[in-house]
Amino acid sequence: MCQLLGMNCNTPTDIMFSFEGFRRRGGITDHHADGFGIGFFEGRGVRLFHDDKPSANSPVADLIRAYPIKSENVIAHIRKASQGQTSLANTHPFMREMWGEYWLFAHNGHLIDFSPEQGAYYRAVGCTDSERAFCYILNRLRSRFPEKPDDAALFDTVSGLTREIRAFGLFNFVMSNGGFLFAHASTLLHYIVRKAPFGKARLLDDDVMVDFAEVTTPSDKVAVITTLPLTRDETWQQLAVNELAMFQNGDIVRSDKPENPVYMSAEEGLAIARAVGISV
Amino acid sequence: MCQLLGMNCNTPTDIMFSFEGFRRRGGITDHHADGFGIGFFEGRGVRLFHDDKPSANSPVADLIRAYPIKSENVIAHIRKASQGQTSLANTHPFMREMWGEYWLFAHNGHLIDFSPEQGAYYRAVGCTDSERAFCYILNRLRSRFPEKPDDAALFDTVSGLTREIRAFGLFNFVMSNGGFLFAHASTLLHYIVRKAPFGKARLLDDDVMVDFAEVTTPSDKVAVITTLPLTRDETWQQLAVNELAMFQNGDIVRSDKPENPVYMSAEEGLAIARAVGISV
Repeated sequence: MCQLLGMNCNTPTDIMFSFEGFRRRGGITDHHADGFGIGFFEGRGVRLFHDDKPSANSPVADLIRAYPIKSENVIAHIRKASQGQTSLANTHPFMREMWGEYWLFAHNGHLIDFSPEQGAYYRAVGCTDSERAFCYILNRLRSRFPEKPDDAALFDTVSGLTREIRAFGLFNFVMSNGGFLFAHASTLLHYIVRKAPFGKARLLDDDVMVDFAEVTTPSDKVAVITTLPLTRDETWQQLAVNELAMFQNGDIVRSDKPENPVYMSAEEGLAIARAVGISV
Repeated sequence: MCQLLGMNCNTPTDIMFSFEGFRRRGGITDHHADGFGIGFFEGRGVRLFHDDKPSANSPVADLIRAYPIKSENVIAHIRKASQGQTSLANTHPFMREMWGEYWLFAHNGHLIDFSPEQGAYYRAVGCTDSERAFCYILNRLRSRFPEKPDDAALFDTVSGLTREIRAFGLFNFVMSNGGFLFAHASTLLHYIVRKAPFGKARLLDDDVMVDFAEVTTPSDKVAVITTLPLTRDETWQQLAVNELAMFQNGDIVRSDKPENPVYMSAEEGLAIARAVGISV
């Protein structure tokens, strides 16, 4: 029932447990059946898997399941087409290089009439509102900062650009450069920071349990960001409506949470998504 | 024994047969054991697989083998590290977006002291001469042509840039934007154009045979480009030393073949590669 999944950690961690729950929402326990994609940062490199098959029975998803890739930053997306035909070019996450770093972006939402002017650096290859939004963010960042700015300036600029773009509609997204991970909620985005003492958790979508204490060291810190919580036995937190958070080393380091934060209920978030023709 | 593999066709074709021979050179019949990568264009999209495991026993390669992806343009590379440490960021093919299209590039060679100034649009993420060369080509193309030029201007410009870069050393490469495929030989690059009437062929590296007549239609045209021929029972042609060829719809449509073409023997090409510390 969710579409976005992000992971940001202070040590390379495999995402197999979370991905197992996530992928099952791609055709078995839910109806997200227009493709999926996942990108793993490894050092400065990115391992990117796209598939236009439903993730619940995709050989690419089977590979990821069987192949414990460890990463400090992961971005994944299950797609239910809202704009743009189903094709590989429209499959998230999208990737571009900026300032000598790869950037990944995945979007869950629906932007109406969002057709910014052609930017100087990045252009959309496919025909989704999502890729246009990603290219817009990068073009504006790159025009303003020929070299990578400090974290505070970067966060403030992304926050401002997010405000601009969400005026066009639903704009839940996760974005990473391999160092930090940005997450923005228009409606629903939940997260959990797992750290010592680690407990056990059971997937909501499946009868799979993991004892995190067995697979971690005491200094590990792992943030998982997802549209709706993936596990029971754990307390998930929620991003406020219109909050942009920046995760680094497994925790939120910056946020522009509104002074009077509003938290959307799952029911309301799902109703809004249905109303604009996307499935959350 | 080879490192580069390209395919350019007039109809989506699977590369499983050629890839089977190619991957076996990645650790079983040869010693190319520092990683491999393959990129498939599908429409405007790209499906990209990178692995830093030897391709002969890589689960990613197993996936590709079992998963008949059909594509009109494919770029693959098996890497024996010559410059830059083995890491995902240094694994070919490299990808960038230009003019709203994805471009893939893979290199087999060795450039000495090739450190061009930072370009306005593209920067290397890893630390290979190969990615620097790719970014240099794209930066120069993009600076000269804000919009995509016609094929003749594009070919002439890439030809000129290739001349510049090969002054720094060995520069065998394949590059594609999903529409055409450029192939350039400093030493060894062979190709075959398969078209009706189709025959049978047997892999050189393995006892696998295919009857192309069974898997094609009479109008199919498939060009395969590779460092050294992959099959027996077929006549492979060779790019001349310092020849850039542009393949489109399964055949060479442009070339800057020298007036007095020189064709390097496999022995000589392999000796040169060994002398500069790369394995061809």
